[in-house]
Amino acid sequence: MKAVRVHAYEKRPTVDDVPEPTVSGPLDVLVEVGAAGLCRTDLHIVEGQWAERSGVELPYIIGHENAGWVREVGSAVTSVAPGDAVILHPLVTCGLCRACRSGDDVHCENQQFPGLDRDGGMAELLLTSARSCVKLAPDLQPADVAALADAGLTAYHAVRKAVPLLYPGTTCVVIGAGGLGHIGIQCLLAMTATEVVVVDRNQAALDLARSLGAHHTVLADGSQVDTVLDLTGGKGAQVVLDFVGEQGSEGEGLSLTRRAGSYYVIGYGGRVDVPTLDLISTERNIVGNLVGSYNDLDELMVLAAQGKVVLHTRQYPLEAVNDAMDHLDTGRLQGRGILVPTRS
Amino acid sequence: MKAVRVHAYEKRPTVDDVPEPTVSGPLDVLVEVGAAGLCRTDLHIVEGQWAERSGVELPYIIGHENAGWVREVGSAVTSVAPGDAVILHPLVTCGLCRACRSGDDVHCENQQFPGLDRDGGMAELLLTSARSCVKLAPDLQPADVAALADAGLTAYHAVRKAVPLLYPGTTCVVIGAGGLGHIGIQCLLAMTATEVVVVDRNQAALDLARSLGAHHTVLADGSQVDTVLDLTGGKGAQVVLDFVGEQGSEGEGLSLTRRAGSYYVIGYGGRVDVPTLDLISTERNIVGNLVGSYNDLDELMVLAAQGKVVLHTRQYPLEAVNDAMDHLDTGRLQGRGILVPTRS
Amino acid sequence: MKAVRVHAYEKRPTVDDVPEPTVSGPLDVLVEVGAAGLCRTDLHIVEGQWAERSGVELPYIIGHENAGWVREVGSAVTSVAPGDAVILHPLVTCGLCRACRSGDDVHCENQQFPGLDRDGGMAELLLTSARSCVKLAPDLQPADVAALADAGLTAYHAVRKAVPLLYPGTTCVVIGAGGLGHIGIQCLLAMTATEVVVVDRNQAALDLARSLGAHHTVLADGSQVDTVLDLTGGKGAQVVLDFVGEQGSEGEGLSLTRRAGSYYVIGYGGRVDVPTLDLISTERNIVGNLVGSYNDLDELMVLAAQGKVVLHTRQYPLEAVNDAMDHLDTGRLQGRGILVPTRS
Amino acid sequence: MKAVRVHAYEKRPTVDDVPEPTVSGPLDVLVEVGAAGLCRTDLHIVEGQWAERSGVELPYIIGHENAGWVREVGSAVTSVAPGDAVILHPLVTCGLCRACRSGDDVHCENQQFPGLDRDGGMAELLLTSARSCVKLAPDLQPADVAALADAGLTAYHAVRKAVPLLYPGTTCVVIGAGGLGHIGIQCLLAMTATEVVVVDRNQAALDLARSLGAHHTVLADGSQVDTVLDLTGGKGAQVVLDFVGEQGSEGEGLSLTRRAGSYYVIGYGGRVDVPTLDLISTERNIVGNLVGSYNDLDELMVLAAQGKVVLHTRQYPLEAVNDAMDHLDTGRLQGRGILVPTRS
Repeated sequence: MKAVRVHAYEKRPTVDDVPEPTVSGPLDVLVEVGAAGLCRTDLHIVEGQWAERSGVELPYIIGHENAGWVREVGSAVTSVAPGDAVILHPLVTCGLCRACRSGDDVHCENQQFPGLDRDGGMAELLLTSARSCVKLAPDLQPADVAALADAGLTAYHAVRKAVPLLYPGTTCVVIGAGGLGHIGIQCLLAMTATEVVVVDRNQAALDLARSLGAHHTVLADGSQVDTVLDLTGGKGAQVVLDFVGEQGSEGEGLSLTRRAGSYYVIGYGGRVDVPTLDLISTERNIVGNLVGSYNDLDELMVLAAQGKVVLHTRQYPLEAVNDAMDHLDTGRLQGRGILVPTRS
Repeated sequence: MKAVRVHAYEKRPTVDDVPEPTVSGPLDVLVEVGAAGLCRTDLHIVEGQWAERSGVELPYIIGHENAGWVREVGSAVTSVAPGDAVILHPLVTCGLCRACRSGDDVHCENQQFPGLDRDGGMAELLLTSARSCVKLAPDLQPADVAALADAGLTAYHAVRKAVPLLYPGTTCVVIGAGGLGHIGIQCLLAMTATEVVVVDRNQAALDLARSLGAHHTVLADGSQVDTVLDLTGGKGAQVVLDFVGEQGSEGEGLSLTRRAGSYYVIGYGGRVDVPTLDLISTERNIVGNLVGSYNDLDELMVLAAQGKVVLHTRQYPLEAVNDAMDHLDTGRLQGRGILVPTRS
Repeated sequence: MKAVRVHAYEKRPTVDDVPEPTVSGPLDVLVEVGAAGLCRTDLHIVEGQWAERSGVELPYIIGHENAGWVREVGSAVTSVAPGDAVILHPLVTCGLCRACRSGDDVHCENQQFPGLDRDGGMAELLLTSARSCVKLAPDLQPADVAALADAGLTAYHAVRKAVPLLYPGTTCVVIGAGGLGHIGIQCLLAMTATEVVVVDRNQAALDLARSLGAHHTVLADGSQVDTVLDLTGGKGAQVVLDFVGEQGSEGEGLSLTRRAGSYYVIGYGGRVDVPTLDLISTERNIVGNLVGSYNDLDELMVLAAQGKVVLHTRQYPLEAVNDAMDHLDTGRLQGRGILVPTRS
Repeated sequence: MKAVRVHAYEKRPTVDDVPEPTVSGPLDVLVEVGAAGLCRTDLHIVEGQWAERSGVELPYIIGHENAGWVREVGSAVTSVAPGDAVILHPLVTCGLCRACRSGDDVHCENQQFPGLDRDGGMAELLLTSARSCVKLAPDLQPADVAALADAGLTAYHAVRKAVPLLYPGTTCVVIGAGGLGHIGIQCLLAMTATEVVVVDRNQAALDLARSLGAHHTVLADGSQVDTVLDLTGGKGAQVVLDFVGEQGSEGEGLSLTRRAGSYYVIGYGGRVDVPTLDLISTERNIVGNLVGSYNDLDELMVLAAQGKVVLHTRQYPLEAVNDAMDHLDTGRLQGRGILVPTRS
């Protein structure tokens, strides 16, 4: 089959002919890839940033945002069958540790991450586990939802955790209305009646946020903290979702969080640096956020099927992976890039 | 009446004869002070550290950890009556803002803090509000519980917030077994079945912790992080309660917090400084903690009446306030210092 | 002033000239009534059903769904001022008991209920407490929201409690789309992404439900249990909100509640009668629901101001109270009846 | 191997020589039974009460409270290994449905119940699933804990759900201090600081409760409702745990539940029959309770290892099953009966 493989760090991947993976374990599921989302993490992998952490042997196949159709299943699989359309949770988890048994499978003690530490899904076929397969509603196409498998799922997860704090009359500040943020905004509007205030440096991102239903949009031109404080009577918001997490958004996010409020860190790259006195005198929380659980992905697919969460995408054939990477790297890719293998 | 007043910052307070406060507002309560706890914050007030923040006019009466007996009540007070033994929540709150109406009165938008921003309770009489009075059970004496009004209440509040995370099989690390920490340990043991690991630089504090029932004590001699990680299978604890919050405990506290765990900041003075990547990749939480609510104090008095929370104290007559301050300042005060006005 | 008073049970009230109430207590608030909702409970009061329970002395003024403008306030009132437009929580609460201090003021141990156990608001003026006043947003008129003060608040409260159970992918069954139910449906759609299934005997009520956005409507013609079970794959719903609570809805409601699900009793008149074996083998919950708290009313006013909750009303002058009662009693009143005093 | 099999309903089981079960599925685990608890449900099975519901084919092996040592594991089992001492969760669950993936495996959509609907553990060997095995701490012996696998787990689960309601100052009423109740009392004391009031018809049960640490014991001699109401200032308890669920405890349990409180149904046999008006006017909850989850069992084993939960047991050799059944049936069995296979 065709597959996008990294052969050496700092060199672009190539599209190779490789042997098809095969079902061997009892919970294995072999999926015909319908679409593979292209993520900034893929660029970082190619740059070698994950080399040490993942410990993966080269060459290997990248791609961790996948949806498609089940081709074959292992002997113990009862939850999906050949022909089912599925989206794949990015992790392969054990199902037996405390975290898995608490619905918190993202913290599985024995997890693997196809596309990062083993062969991923920028290929015609992907080998995964029954535990990773969420069946798609009849109206959903793999190419429309694949990129929700990781980026969207992360945004959904953070919003889902914040929902109990966002009763009517609250304000939620969203920092960054890009790939994750624009999904987060849609999730907030679908699940709460909170007032959504979006901050971004990019007017086009704010226009998109507004068209999705955000109540206020604020250009990050240097006065954004004052503007948002004004919108909240000087108090800040009960919840701040920071999809940037670097370049000053960390401090701004905390400044925009009111007493007893919570600052959710989702994007990363920077540092949270705050006096303990500031945390205790206002009793604020700083909440780390990882990708969502299997159940989160299942719920997000409901919102997608209801039309409440829609991704903006641009499709490329699998062979054009390097065009897509170029476009992403140079800011010429609007929406999420999706690689689609050619079915022969 | 006799009262301990600050006349100038950086000068020790004096015991003055001042007019008695009088009931004027409908919710006013005038309390005969039975005991006033001495807190390190009182030293900081005298040093002028709170001058700007409190904006209080000198001279004024300090003291914010009080218990005693109701002498007189305002026209609208129905919850306490003259003669009732009471402990006083440190804040005077409005009862009408969203926070007060949510049981979260510590975040009252119109709060006052007797002993900080208005006359406090190192005196024979203290004027407070009906909203601040918790009635004492018959077995409790004001002098035995006064210092729970602020220090103890802060420890209780943090533990109370952590209880839902501390199911059997979890570990809770307590950093600092001093004035607040030793109350926190007792609260943990009273309300959970978690394994309590106490870290302190002071062997005497660890001995006290052990005598209170802590399961493990670890001397902070440089190897404490490794020792605690070993105790938790290398994973760290689900909850870390940091009663120090400075001098390196901040980073250590986070290091001892496992994936998906929570680091509670209670002590202060230092900084939390952590890469956003570290927060998101492990999905950890940093939780600020302030003093407890009125209901928290009511609950803490139940634990005190049950004998589950006991304070170690040393009593001084009110006139000996400067002896007590000297002892506190120079580390010669074991347990909590309590000032007791002479009843004529 | 003009006021609607009950002089004898089983006799219709009369509109009398009575002395104006006056502010005497420190938290008193005197309100110029802008609108008084007419509730079926008012009919029951007139019929004498509440005589024993309320113990009120006749004659007295009825009316417990009120909104208007503050005319005068007591000495300790800081939260509202003359001229403010307000809606009134139906209870006058003490603010000092455990329930009040937990945000659960509906369970105040010292509550009064104007219009039931003391003079109410079908009058030109109503004396209430600062603790009962929720300020209205500029866009809201008392006559548009008055009936949300009790009926709407009850519906909101039940939905608010159920929100954490109603993640995407769940189903919520609403039994009864009348005065309370049609508010409940709007609240569900505003605060969750759950699938809303409405059951009613009345096709017009179902049409209204559909126009408000309900996903499925089911006529209660005898086959409704089967129909709803079909809609939920035979399993029933995670949450059933029963706004009827009599005439068989109790048993049906439980039948429509899936394993580990919750049946919310809001309407009343009937009985819940279920084998303990049925409750434990399926681990289902039965949840009683009373009117909402002050904070609930505050939140509901946000939904009203956002246009997400709209009441259908018919206005009558205060003097026409008996016409309104006739219309309500005989089913000729579409929407909620609102009495409006004539301002001279 | 030796096994206790039911050949016909209403006839006592016999101890037969049967073929040993063998590992075939990838998640299978074959356990050498160390102890099998005898439960009243076993009597009911023999009486035929479960015949229709379980649909099991006769003859089959009963026994659903088991602990022992792993002998052999399937190809995909990584969580236990031969030689491990384990206690077995009574259900075999799929791990893939929404309930399993939420930590709520008791509501697994594809569950089996060895000893009820397939061969159980009154035998030398039991075939179960890796998903049912909880490893025992070194200090715990299978014979000491086996009966916690179902009876104890049910009690633990109910208490665990109630913990968030049981802050200091609350009262918890326990109805029935028998096999489940006496475990529930120990769990309450281990995990909360609530005041525990125990009601039972049997003075010996009350004596046991008192020796375990219950704060008040009340003989159910007809005046128990009044006595308990007196103990709670006439208000009733925040939580009532009803381990009886029949013969009048249902109505009493509700009578002892205060406004906004919760009545937990654990025992069964009777009916809950209550006017909807009573539920809504007091806003009380009725909470069904089933056996606990896998994680619950894991936590209960921590309490057992800490010595906080101790079972009173009487051991019999496996061959003496009918003696044990006689003793249980006629009330001559103090504590829990435990069958122990003879190791050759």
